[in-house]
Amino acid sequence: MDIYKTLREESYEANLEIKRCNLAIYTWGNASSFDPDKGVFAIKPSGVEYDELTPKKIVLVDLEGKVIDSKLKPSSDTKTHLVLYREFKGILGVTHTHSPYAVAWAQTGKPIPVFGTTHADNCAYEIPCTAFINPQDVKNDYELETGNLIVNTFKTNNFDFSQIKMTLVAGHGPFTWGNSAAQSVYNSVVLEEICKMALFTVTIDSNAKPLPEHIIKKHWERKHGANAYYGQK
Amino acid sequence: MDIYKTLREESYEANLEIKRCNLAIYTWGNASSFDPDKGVFAIKPSGVEYDELTPKKIVLVDLEGKVIDSKLKPSSDTKTHLVLYREFKGILGVTHTHSPYAVAWAQTGKPIPVFGTTHADNCAYEIPCTAFINPQDVKNDYELETGNLIVNTFKTNNFDFSQIKMTLVAGHGPFTWGNSAAQSVYNSVVLEEICKMALFTVTIDSNAKPLPEHIIKKHWERKHGANAYYGQK
Amino acid sequence: MDIYKTLREESYEANLEIKRCNLAIYTWGNASSFDPDKGVFAIKPSGVEYDELTPKKIVLVDLEGKVIDSKLKPSSDTKTHLVLYREFKGILGVTHTHSPYAVAWAQTGKPIPVFGTTHADNCAYEIPCTAFINPQDVKNDYELETGNLIVNTFKTNNFDFSQIKMTLVAGHGPFTWGNSAAQSVYNSVVLEEICKMALFTVTIDSNAKPLPEHIIKKHWERKHGANAYYGQK
Amino acid sequence: MDIYKTLREESYEANLEIKRCNLAIYTWGNASSFDPDKGVFAIKPSGVEYDELTPKKIVLVDLEGKVIDSKLKPSSDTKTHLVLYREFKGILGVTHTHSPYAVAWAQTGKPIPVFGTTHADNCAYEIPCTAFINPQDVKNDYELETGNLIVNTFKTNNFDFSQIKMTLVAGHGPFTWGNSAAQSVYNSVVLEEICKMALFTVTIDSNAKPLPEHIIKKHWERKHGANAYYGQK
Repeated sequence: MDIYKTLREESYEANLEIKRCNLAIYTWGNASSFDPDKGVFAIKPSGVEYDELTPKKIVLVDLEGKVIDSKLKPSSDTKTHLVLYREFKGILGVTHTHSPYAVAWAQTGKPIPVFGTTHADNCAYEIPCTAFINPQDVKNDYELETGNLIVNTFKTNNFDFSQIKMTLVAGHGPFTWGNSAAQSVYNSVVLEEICKMALFTVTIDSNAKPLPEHIIKKHWERKHGANAYYGQK
Repeated sequence: MDIYKTLREESYEANLEIKRCNLAIYTWGNASSFDPDKGVFAIKPSGVEYDELTPKKIVLVDLEGKVIDSKLKPSSDTKTHLVLYREFKGILGVTHTHSPYAVAWAQTGKPIPVFGTTHADNCAYEIPCTAFINPQDVKNDYELETGNLIVNTFKTNNFDFSQIKMTLVAGHGPFTWGNSAAQSVYNSVVLEEICKMALFTVTIDSNAKPLPEHIIKKHWERKHGANAYYGQK
Repeated sequence: MDIYKTLREESYEANLEIKRCNLAIYTWGNASSFDPDKGVFAIKPSGVEYDELTPKKIVLVDLEGKVIDSKLKPSSDTKTHLVLYREFKGILGVTHTHSPYAVAWAQTGKPIPVFGTTHADNCAYEIPCTAFINPQDVKNDYELETGNLIVNTFKTNNFDFSQIKMTLVAGHGPFTWGNSAAQSVYNSVVLEEICKMALFTVTIDSNAKPLPEHIIKKHWERKHGANAYYGQK
Repeated sequence: MDIYKTLREESYEANLEIKRCNLAIYTWGNASSFDPDKGVFAIKPSGVEYDELTPKKIVLVDLEGKVIDSKLKPSSDTKTHLVLYREFKGILGVTHTHSPYAVAWAQTGKPIPVFGTTHADNCAYEIPCTAFINPQDVKNDYELETGNLIVNTFKTNNFDFSQIKMTLVAGHGPFTWGNSAAQSVYNSVVLEEICKMALFTVTIDSNAKPLPEHIIKKHWERKHGANAYYGQK
């Protein structure tokens, strides 16, 4: 019996969803699912096509980065996932893709302004963009330091990772997280849509202004928090 | 026997059409169907995926906002639909989506100029964009006041809702209406196409001029009004 | 026996191809097929959805505009097709659509520069854009005068309609023609692709220069004329 | 027995992949497969639709340009492929398409800056763009000289074709190569994605800066060379 069966399946499904939602071509995205009790997460194997994935091929990794009970090498981005699970206590899924609109914003190094309610429904703040990772960190342990870069960007700016579940890494692309692997992919889809709308917005008006704060707050609270009234509860 | 069976089915079909026409991802759009004799409209339940919709899950609401004979909560945008039915006498369907090109124009707060005959075939005027809703109205009754904002924008500017069946709400997105739920979705598709063409137009030429008035008038009258000669009558 | 059977079928197939190639939503495009011996062309009925078309529903019209042996009303753009068949001797098919990239260029009123070999493979010159049709012509006989506007644009500028098989009508959209209805739709697909590439080009570089004349000439002659060597002959 | 069976099939599959990946409409792309031992490559026949291709219709050509054991005429771009096989020793596949984002960059005559890690994962340098081919070369032997233009652009600039497996030809479009016909199409897909992201990037920020060199190097080395650790080895 595989005590990691569910964890592997959750990761497997999330990785397939990356493909279904057109967030990545070839092998350019990875999703993971975390079990905090076991201290283990399940992640896509490196360089394997989505069409060839099976739950069995999903790789298990502990929070020290040790591969467990798996035949394949985990995603090259594994240590970034690891840092996020270690530092953003409570998250249970992480997704990284190269979806083109999110990548484009990341390539400009700019955060995404809250241009409208689509954004505010999902995040009440600008989507952050980290600085470019420095040469020392690249040399030291690139993927681990990419995780630290995200975490430090949130700490330094007092961003709350439980409210802002997505970020851009400058020059690279989007990382998102959530209460499950599925939720983290959902947030990647949402981020891509927000980035597309934001690009269209600045195309029409390069001086477009962010949404007034009282509307941002309203839309966020409609869907999240104690007085949320969206959905069926 | 369900005396609302047809009404529910019309709403159900219109909501599925939102998905089929790629006007919304996830649950980001809603359509309703109105029966003026009964004073009741049928609307999408809040937060339910299109793939999980059934006619039975469609929610009935009267013009005071009271839910009738339904198990689920109606769309969070229900009161906006309600105000439109109450104030725009004669309309029988309303659709709201987050289609990306329409949202982008809404996020700039700009009306859409009549750049060409595609627009004029469907609307002889700029597509209006409301002002941003003010803090008091958000606090008071957000979705109801969003409806009032649309209605007041039309009244203040002497816009005729029977000629202009679509609007943008600033920072939010499109609302459209029509002689049926199906017609209101049709108008959302048309609006998205117009918004896409308008964005492409200003991309090529940021000083693009509106269509001369005599061509606008001709195209509108070809399809609408007493001397229309488009279609099979 | 229907002596127009083939003509109707050619038009029918060409109209379906408009839909398959995403050149129009709803009923926003029409193709016709011409039989010069009979002096009759077969065109889409006005306002009929592509999914509901049958060869039998295609409408026959002679060069005086008289409908022959048909139950439905022809496309509202019929007289534009008619003028093109009358004046551009030898063409056997005409297509009009509202494909978004071509419409966008038409909405700017600008001809499309020969930015590259994709364009030159299909047309060795700028794709013309007419002037806006004037109020008198709109009042007189709009669709007929739209045809005259195209023809006069070609005559005035010494454009050769057998070399330039496509044009934009300012503020409206594309008209294309060819040696068959199928060829005219092919040219509409090509024009949309050229317009997309041209928009992308000016997005990257608003001062993009046309292709040097010697490359334009080479690419045109590779595919067309006495010394063409493209294809299997 | 056909000693070229495998070679033909590889070319056939690669040409179908061009279509499946939406890199070309109609017949606007061609892929070839090279057998260095036999000194022969297998290429798409000129002007034949992808849907009508069969392995048998693929045309065999030797490095002098002589057609072997084939009924159809080879692609009009055959001599460009030929020069690349002759000069870029070791490559086994070449692809040319008219994919719209790559064509747009080619139409501006600009190389594509390394804006992000998506680019650096696949190429550590700007994607080169040749100069416009000169009148003499067009007159002399256009397709052969297009090959020479690419080769000379690489030689003059000390570009390494085994590291940079893609280029733009100014005013024309992309050519890519690789260790097999399949790899060359893969590189065409990658190039189109890079070009799309680069266009989006300059749309958001016309002054977007290239990725810092230390990140470029890291991403390239992660996937390529002696210390690569991406994939399953």
